[in-house]
Amino acid sequence: MTWGESHGPALGCVIDGCPPGLEFTRQEIQDFLDKRKPGQSRFTTQRREDDAVEILSGVMADEKDETLLTTTGAPVSMMIKNTDQRSKDYSEIKDRYRPGHADYSYDLKYGIRDYRGGGRSSARETAARVAAGGLARKVVPQAIIRGALVQIGEKKINRDNWDWAQVGQNDFFCPDAQMVEEWASYLDGIRKDGSSVGAVIEVIAENVPAGLGAPVYAKLDQDIASHLMSINAVKGVEIGNGFEAASITGVENADEMRIGKDGKVEFLSNHAGGVLGGIATGEPVVARFAVKPTSSILTPRKSVTAKGEEVDVSTKGRHDPCVGIRAVPIGEAMVACAIADHYIMHRGQTGRV
Amino acid sequence: MTWGESHGPALGCVIDGCPPGLEFTRQEIQDFLDKRKPGQSRFTTQRREDDAVEILSGVMADEKDETLLTTTGAPVSMMIKNTDQRSKDYSEIKDRYRPGHADYSYDLKYGIRDYRGGGRSSARETAARVAAGGLARKVVPQAIIRGALVQIGEKKINRDNWDWAQVGQNDFFCPDAQMVEEWASYLDGIRKDGSSVGAVIEVIAENVPAGLGAPVYAKLDQDIASHLMSINAVKGVEIGNGFEAASITGVENADEMRIGKDGKVEFLSNHAGGVLGGIATGEPVVARFAVKPTSSILTPRKSVTAKGEEVDVSTKGRHDPCVGIRAVPIGEAMVACAIADHYIMHRGQTGRV
Amino acid sequence: MTWGESHGPALGCVIDGCPPGLEFTRQEIQDFLDKRKPGQSRFTTQRREDDAVEILSGVMADEKDETLLTTTGAPVSMMIKNTDQRSKDYSEIKDRYRPGHADYSYDLKYGIRDYRGGGRSSARETAARVAAGGLARKVVPQAIIRGALVQIGEKKINRDNWDWAQVGQNDFFCPDAQMVEEWASYLDGIRKDGSSVGAVIEVIAENVPAGLGAPVYAKLDQDIASHLMSINAVKGVEIGNGFEAASITGVENADEMRIGKDGKVEFLSNHAGGVLGGIATGEPVVARFAVKPTSSILTPRKSVTAKGEEVDVSTKGRHDPCVGIRAVPIGEAMVACAIADHYIMHRGQTGRV
Amino acid sequence: MTWGESHGPALGCVIDGCPPGLEFTRQEIQDFLDKRKPGQSRFTTQRREDDAVEILSGVMADEKDETLLTTTGAPVSMMIKNTDQRSKDYSEIKDRYRPGHADYSYDLKYGIRDYRGGGRSSARETAARVAAGGLARKVVPQAIIRGALVQIGEKKINRDNWDWAQVGQNDFFCPDAQMVEEWASYLDGIRKDGSSVGAVIEVIAENVPAGLGAPVYAKLDQDIASHLMSINAVKGVEIGNGFEAASITGVENADEMRIGKDGKVEFLSNHAGGVLGGIATGEPVVARFAVKPTSSILTPRKSVTAKGEEVDVSTKGRHDPCVGIRAVPIGEAMVACAIADHYIMHRGQTGRV
Repeated sequence: MTWGESHGPALGCVIDGCPPGLEFTRQEIQDFLDKRKPGQSRFTTQRREDDAVEILSGVMADEKDETLLTTTGAPVSMMIKNTDQRSKDYSEIKDRYRPGHADYSYDLKYGIRDYRGGGRSSARETAARVAAGGLARKVVPQAIIRGALVQIGEKKINRDNWDWAQVGQNDFFCPDAQMVEEWASYLDGIRKDGSSVGAVIEVIAENVPAGLGAPVYAKLDQDIASHLMSINAVKGVEIGNGFEAASITGVENADEMRIGKDGKVEFLSNHAGGVLGGIATGEPVVARFAVKPTSSILTPRKSVTAKGEEVDVSTKGRHDPCVGIRAVPIGEAMVACAIADHYIMHRGQTGRV
Repeated sequence: MTWGESHGPALGCVIDGCPPGLEFTRQEIQDFLDKRKPGQSRFTTQRREDDAVEILSGVMADEKDETLLTTTGAPVSMMIKNTDQRSKDYSEIKDRYRPGHADYSYDLKYGIRDYRGGGRSSARETAARVAAGGLARKVVPQAIIRGALVQIGEKKINRDNWDWAQVGQNDFFCPDAQMVEEWASYLDGIRKDGSSVGAVIEVIAENVPAGLGAPVYAKLDQDIASHLMSINAVKGVEIGNGFEAASITGVENADEMRIGKDGKVEFLSNHAGGVLGGIATGEPVVARFAVKPTSSILTPRKSVTAKGEEVDVSTKGRHDPCVGIRAVPIGEAMVACAIADHYIMHRGQTGRV
Repeated sequence: MTWGESHGPALGCVIDGCPPGLEFTRQEIQDFLDKRKPGQSRFTTQRREDDAVEILSGVMADEKDETLLTTTGAPVSMMIKNTDQRSKDYSEIKDRYRPGHADYSYDLKYGIRDYRGGGRSSARETAARVAAGGLARKVVPQAIIRGALVQIGEKKINRDNWDWAQVGQNDFFCPDAQMVEEWASYLDGIRKDGSSVGAVIEVIAENVPAGLGAPVYAKLDQDIASHLMSINAVKGVEIGNGFEAASITGVENADEMRIGKDGKVEFLSNHAGGVLGGIATGEPVVARFAVKPTSSILTPRKSVTAKGEEVDVSTKGRHDPCVGIRAVPIGEAMVACAIADHYIMHRGQTGRV
Repeated sequence: MTWGESHGPALGCVIDGCPPGLEFTRQEIQDFLDKRKPGQSRFTTQRREDDAVEILSGVMADEKDETLLTTTGAPVSMMIKNTDQRSKDYSEIKDRYRPGHADYSYDLKYGIRDYRGGGRSSARETAARVAAGGLARKVVPQAIIRGALVQIGEKKINRDNWDWAQVGQNDFFCPDAQMVEEWASYLDGIRKDGSSVGAVIEVIAENVPAGLGAPVYAKLDQDIASHLMSINAVKGVEIGNGFEAASITGVENADEMRIGKDGKVEFLSNHAGGVLGGIATGEPVVARFAVKPTSSILTPRKSVTAKGEEVDVSTKGRHDPCVGIRAVPIGEAMVACAIADHYIMHRGQTGRV
């Protein structure tokens, strides 16, 4: 199960190798896209994007209920049309390299750059990932894959307050109810300053079948890291306790095992984040990733033009003060895609689920 | 340029798609392997492994100087025979799951496990990566790819003391001469306690040609992250300032640009770690990864057997108190492989170097 | 450079890894599609399909001439909307397996089958290939890639009459002007009989840069064979003299070489079809493929239903009496895609064109 | 399940993604290699190659019976050492291009050529394929995959005489007992003339699970064609009735279906060769391929040197008068590999066998 993408008047993804017989509705996919959609609070860009997904192929509609789709085993193609149209003036950015953006590196690589809308490096591209992730969840329906924002700028949540029920009830996908107000006023200040700020997202996948992954070149944790690092603006990825593992001893880090009351193996901790030797243990798979601050900010930053002139660049308009917020559903989708891929590979290699 | 691997009486790697006409000697590859080789100080396992690499195919020897090899464009196959033979008693680990090892997840995945020597999850496997990395460097000879240990347990180096010349002069690949003694006594204590400790390695690649990478699914940073996370015991990966990017503002994080005295574009900082939008900017590519503490420790840890009995597992014998030390040449090799791959892909797509 | 596909209300293809800076117009791609389009003579299906291609992404329009597109290096996505709508009654084929079609094997594989329009096994799918091929030609502009029909049923052209100029002047892509009338009356008879007939297509690519391909697992001839065999209804593929090579001696089959008047190497024959050891020699690359007769015929054939009943199946309506005719532009496209892929790979590996 | 290869002092293959728990012995693999081994009759080269295969990794030996191996799910690495050593004088071929060999195209592609032993274009390379095929059979043990020689030069067998039991009882893998003598004297004449001749091999795979394959880009017949065309010296591939499909009508070509006495679907013919729409139907999979005459012949042929001189090349020594004979086990192996790959993919995608 792989997915491709395109960018232009429409975003799309094609999921090849999709198992046949999966049942879903367009609205189920749309629900995930709506979580990513901008303009839902004052903390995300006010740009209007409907992000309405169309399912173009790879499914059959039920004869009685047209909304109920079943995958046929053929590639599932989905498309999200752009509705927020290009009418603005691009002369500002046509020749000047916005710091933190891919403008400069595009020119170096390709010698040509589509300055209208940011091209593939636009955050828009991630909508297609979220759509693909929605379908990926159907491949491994037993897995519960949820994400949350655990840090904005220097402000981290208190993990003792973690409550999944809170995540859907605030503007930040924040699992710590006590942090919501603090983040809100912190972000208001950041925006007032004409700046932006980074964030850390945590994705936890429960009920991932044990055995997914491989010992060396298709490690489950490797592929999750690869998928997450492929999201725009991501600069770091952790599995389990991540960088903390470097700081502690082997005695502390060992996830000890015991036989539970039900006769099954029990882990007494999960520093490993559900993956040992590249293979899922059945414990929750835990991944974390860092998103850099939005590069488009009001405060002028020094830059140069394609012609070699020095300029100051300042970006007006509708930008997220913290793109990390909307990265939560994207991170969930990427983890879902990696798990679905490995589910199919594991079933192919071993004949087991 | 991809490489495969195998494990058993010998390790091997096959590098397909290797450019023709690269000149090297076996000793050049061996030199990298010798950096990874155990038993060179009291801080690494005392196991004897010669790690002598043989070049089996894909090269022609010079008619006059047999040691000078030239790649022919055919797959380069290299092999490292195991010399430290399997004579020991495996009954201890045959049925018991060592915490932190892949024993348990192997059994879940495959239903069969080669308990003699750890199979593919053995740290031995990484020797083949180092050999592949030695060849990868020849593909992009202008790039200078160097690694260093920047943290052992809670003890981080002082980056103001960074001196590449120090790295080869101590047992830790440590660039901070003042930290060497402290690490030595710290590790002695860890070992005396029957424990182990984690580490952080930083790899910096200078003179990487601008343009390598791609905007979405073959990002340079994504592939570096994927390669590094595929190393045994790695739990976290960062590019540029990594997780620090989450903590700072967009004003601080912007890598401003100016025109230098030579008329060329100059970056005033490198938070991005040499990659913007998945594409190399020409600035140094900076990657960092966290290695967990060695799982094989003397202190008994709770575990279970394959038959469902509770046991305590304690590992005697010759294990690295900090596997992170020997991970330095491995990390260098992985970064070199990612850069060589992207060099070839970029040249293929654009016709430029 | 790979392409994906989808099927449903629209066909699409996404060409990833496309070199930047290629210039083309939508109409250039359309011209190839028009060659494949049905309904242009009485010898192809009278179904109406506009097959209008849209370029969705991966290109920039020239500021002065909007029709002039330049590839940006991002994936080029193209789409062909279906206009001949599904209104007909599918009850006839919903449960009954049409001999020669994939109906039966789909049900066995997926347990579900989209009976409306034949799904991915429809000949419609090949329109996306032709679009991809149009772009592939831009990657290797020096190559001249042309196809012709050389056999319909038992009637083979006289190769002595081969004239490329004829190919565009008859309804059969026939290079032998004397065969045109014979084929026309032959096909009229076939159709009157309620039957159909197979064909052989030859594709010749001149000016293919020497060196494309690889000695073992990415042979140029292998990939051409793979691409051609992936076209619906193709049952055989030949390179150079193909099966004739089995019948002749090594003395006869040797393509002897001499130094030409210009001092360049000259081959005295081209039994090899331009490929030696999987690598292009610079001679014309010659491929041939056999297309089976259209399976949808008026004459009733014995079959069964999904419920296990015996039935006779006869297909009314607008079907090509010889699908091989419209396979000519498809075969050209497949050869163009294989050559473009290998051009990029060769340039990546060797740094040469 | 993919396999790589290398060439040099030893041949090797690494089969990744191999299902765990497959049981086999080294001798079972060796038996297939012995069928390919030269020097077993006067009709194959008299060169001495032991072709002894070693299993290096990916297996565990049974504790009681060391010869019984079980795959562990890790990559299976096999190696075949070269024993017929390079002592001969290569000056003859160092600079001169042997017609029909890859010498010339290698030089064009790589600018460097290993003239000692033919490199990867040597027929030796196919030994690794046969080893991989031996393991592939274990993945789909129910499939019976057998090959036979059906044509040498212009002499075709009489298919009415087809008897599988004959194949192992003559020097030609010939299923027609009456043809054996004729081929023997024909080949003696060919050799006496200092020439060689081509051949056609047919491979039939029975009991291939229905459903293997895919409708468009991973067609079972496409991948079989690709694998077979990747064998050295192969110039044509057919599935089912192949090129004959071009000559006959749709009425004749239809494989009609009925319900058999056992209530199961029965095909009344198998023109399709067991594949419809890229997917296996459960009928025997039939593939055929043409092998060109051995290029190394005693009769001098015109050629040139790397320096641009005209020369005549004549190859003395121990060459097969018809390399097609030894291609039978190679073709079987390639079909087995394609089927094993698709078995794993199909199981992964659908969860069915």
